Amino acid sequence: MEKDFFRLLPTKRVWQILDSFNVLSSETVEVVEALWRITSKDIISPEDLPPFPRSTMDGYAVRARDTFGASESEPGILRVISEIRMGEDASNIEIGPGECVKIWTGGHLPKGADSVLMLEYTRALDDKTIEIFKAVAPGENVILRGEDCKKGEVVIKGGTRLRAQELGLLSALGIKMVDVTRRPRVAIISTGDEICAVDETPSFGKIRDVNSTTLSSLIKMDGGIPIPLGIVQDSRKDILSTIKKAIFEIDADICLISGGSSVGARDYTVSCFKEICNSPPLVHGVAIRPGKPTIISRFENKALFGLPGHVASCMVVYLLFVHYLIYKITGIKDESPFKRVFARSIKAIPSVIGREDYVRVRLKRPEGKNCYLLEPVYGRSGLISTLVKADGLLVIPRDCEGIYPDEEAEVILLP
Amino acid sequence: MEKDFFRLLPTKRVWQILDSFNVLSSETVEVVEALWRITSKDIISPEDLPPFPRSTMDGYAVRARDTFGASESEPGILRVISEIRMGEDASNIEIGPGECVKIWTGGHLPKGADSVLMLEYTRALDDKTIEIFKAVAPGENVILRGEDCKKGEVVIKGGTRLRAQELGLLSALGIKMVDVTRRPRVAIISTGDEICAVDETPSFGKIRDVNSTTLSSLIKMDGGIPIPLGIVQDSRKDILSTIKKAIFEIDADICLISGGSSVGARDYTVSCFKEICNSPPLVHGVAIRPGKPTIISRFENKALFGLPGHVASCMVVYLLFVHYLIYKITGIKDESPFKRVFARSIKAIPSVIGREDYVRVRLKRPEGKNCYLLEPVYGRSGLISTLVKADGLLVIPRDCEGIYPDEEAEVILLP
Repeated sequence: MEKDFFRLLPTKRVWQILDSFNVLSSETVEVVEALWRITSKDIISPEDLPPFPRSTMDGYAVRARDTFGASESEPGILRVISEIRMGEDASNIEIGPGECVKIWTGGHLPKGADSVLMLEYTRALDDKTIEIFKAVAPGENVILRGEDCKKGEVVIKGGTRLRAQELGLLSALGIKMVDVTRRPRVAIISTGDEICAVDETPSFGKIRDVNSTTLSSLIKMDGGIPIPLGIVQDSRKDILSTIKKAIFEIDADICLISGGSSVGARDYTVSCFKEICNSPPLVHGVAIRPGKPTIISRFENKALFGLPGHVASCMVVYLLFVHYLIYKITGIKDESPFKRVFARSIKAIPSVIGREDYVRVRLKRPEGKNCYLLEPVYGRSGLISTLVKADGLLVIPRDCEGIYPDEEAEVILLP
Repeated sequence: MEKDFFRLLPTKRVWQILDSFNVLSSETVEVVEALWRITSKDIISPEDLPPFPRSTMDGYAVRARDTFGASESEPGILRVISEIRMGEDASNIEIGPGECVKIWTGGHLPKGADSVLMLEYTRALDDKTIEIFKAVAPGENVILRGEDCKKGEVVIKGGTRLRAQELGLLSALGIKMVDVTRRPRVAIISTGDEICAVDETPSFGKIRDVNSTTLSSLIKMDGGIPIPLGIVQDSRKDILSTIKKAIFEIDADICLISGGSSVGARDYTVSCFKEICNSPPLVHGVAIRPGKPTIISRFENKALFGLPGHVASCMVVYLLFVHYLIYKITGIKDESPFKRVFARSIKAIPSVIGREDYVRVRLKRPEGKNCYLLEPVYGRSGLISTLVKADGLLVIPRDCEGIYPDEEAEVILLP
């Protein structure tokens, strides 16, 4: 097997490569099950919302011009010709000059009326007559037909993450099913002769498989379907057959192989990717730390990732590239793949020219202050506890030798 | 039925009242199902992690002192006495002065060795001898026994939200079950004679029930279990029996009644709460807009909320108070209930002294700039589309008549 050399790419170039993957196909799901899913096309309103003008207050539906000049000292007088209860069809009621109709919040505004005068600015003189102590403007205390949205209007664009309010809007419009991008299927393979399954008691010299748990959770948080395929020993034959299973049998959209951080196992991963994809990897090393030995190959629209075995490196590479790819292939628009904040470092943090550093940091926000303070969480990238202590990843650019104390810098928040 | 008067409380006072509710009981769940759950007690490490010192590189396990002075021009010489494969128990190997052992990433460091010299700084002279071109410091390229965490140490505090990395740590320690606060059960009741179910075709004068969908989604996002109880007509008897069902039969921890924005229905809600709780509401109006007619009562450790019917008001009150209560009763610590950012307004936004304004806003972040710009999303609180367009709620304090253009202000991010 020939020796494989790294060709370190900058992160921007890796993101460009990931941008070339296609958005996954769509499926139709029930609105009640669609929280956090991504719309696969524009959603058009099938009707005007609301379908009729509504009162937003308890009071009297009036013609605004009939109220002009009314005040505490010089009240106006209006004739009450009817009462509209909530949920009642008021199509057969029309008010003329000097007339009004008693109406409740949510009630259907009758013809002729253009506004609602609140109850507290009126006094009933008798069953048919009220005094009014205030003028209203046309449109006051009324939601017009179609004011929320109009029939034929795009109410939710394709590529939108459906939050509570989008689902509420779909319900308001009577839409029960929605087209969303299907959830990506992500196979997870752990390699390494020193790794045992989390439910086994490791013999001395072995440690439990952390990356399968961490990656499964990250994939769930990204809306994907994690498919853990267990632990594969450091053998080219076993690694190849497990990747083939992920790609051809399980039909995974993304295949993650973590571990293989030793030169031998990494070479197996590259060699297997080459055999399956029939071409060299698209990415073979990234100019970042941690995460340098990242490998990315492509078979049709499927992505194969070789992730570092060290737990913190593995998670950083997942966030920077796998999370980014899921974001791309689920078709999200108008939303950044990374949540970033700016923070001031409480101490100097050195880095090295030629690579981008992603330093685990803890963030603090002094009470009432409009800024974050950051403090590095030091520790080797094999330590999961460093991630438990961290809130984000400080980005130290490639051409930067470090961050000064009190310097403001960009932090990507951990999910 | 006596007239009910508002006694507007400031938000801080309402939060204090909610702080008095007790944390829910705990339950034991599998780690693989525990993403986003809240630990109900401290988790203690049952073992040292890693349980033995490990190499973080491919190379040679050495005594650091034997490498001192080694360089490209003056290489040192070491005797190779063995090789340790990954996953192998190296307890029976010990190196002495001038000796080393070949080791792979993740391999068990043998006795006598205190560091690992990377492969690239060595050259094999024969099977038993290597030249070394670099010195290493003690501890270099090694993770010590217990460096990730020590037996008996608190590794995750009670009140922690379990993210991918915490679950990874639990897996690393062989912990399969975890004690977490049980998920709160939240009953949802919609009232209003003008409301029909989302799967019905509304007759003219009626509109579909948006709040049940929106609230269900928000509850899911907060880790609660939504229990929608449908739509209840504006009748005291029906409202009372449905609240009783929620509290006594379904045993909900929280009961939400939305709607009843008309005076009559609101009075029913207050009156029913009084009857069930045998005391006046703890909160009867809040000095905020939207959301003024908020009602909160308490029966044992259960909270009863009367929420405004207007969709935007309902969601704002949910976020400010119901979300806050769920955060409290699930026992979350060291995490703010609200995600806040600061943003500059692109225009003047007027408010009114005496109430806190929560203005729906859209946020933009100019490329590369360390600030957000905010733009108000205008529209009545009955319009769900205003929430669809919004990213957050601008907080205009109670004693503030408005926000100036370019003034920096606090925004609570919508979930």
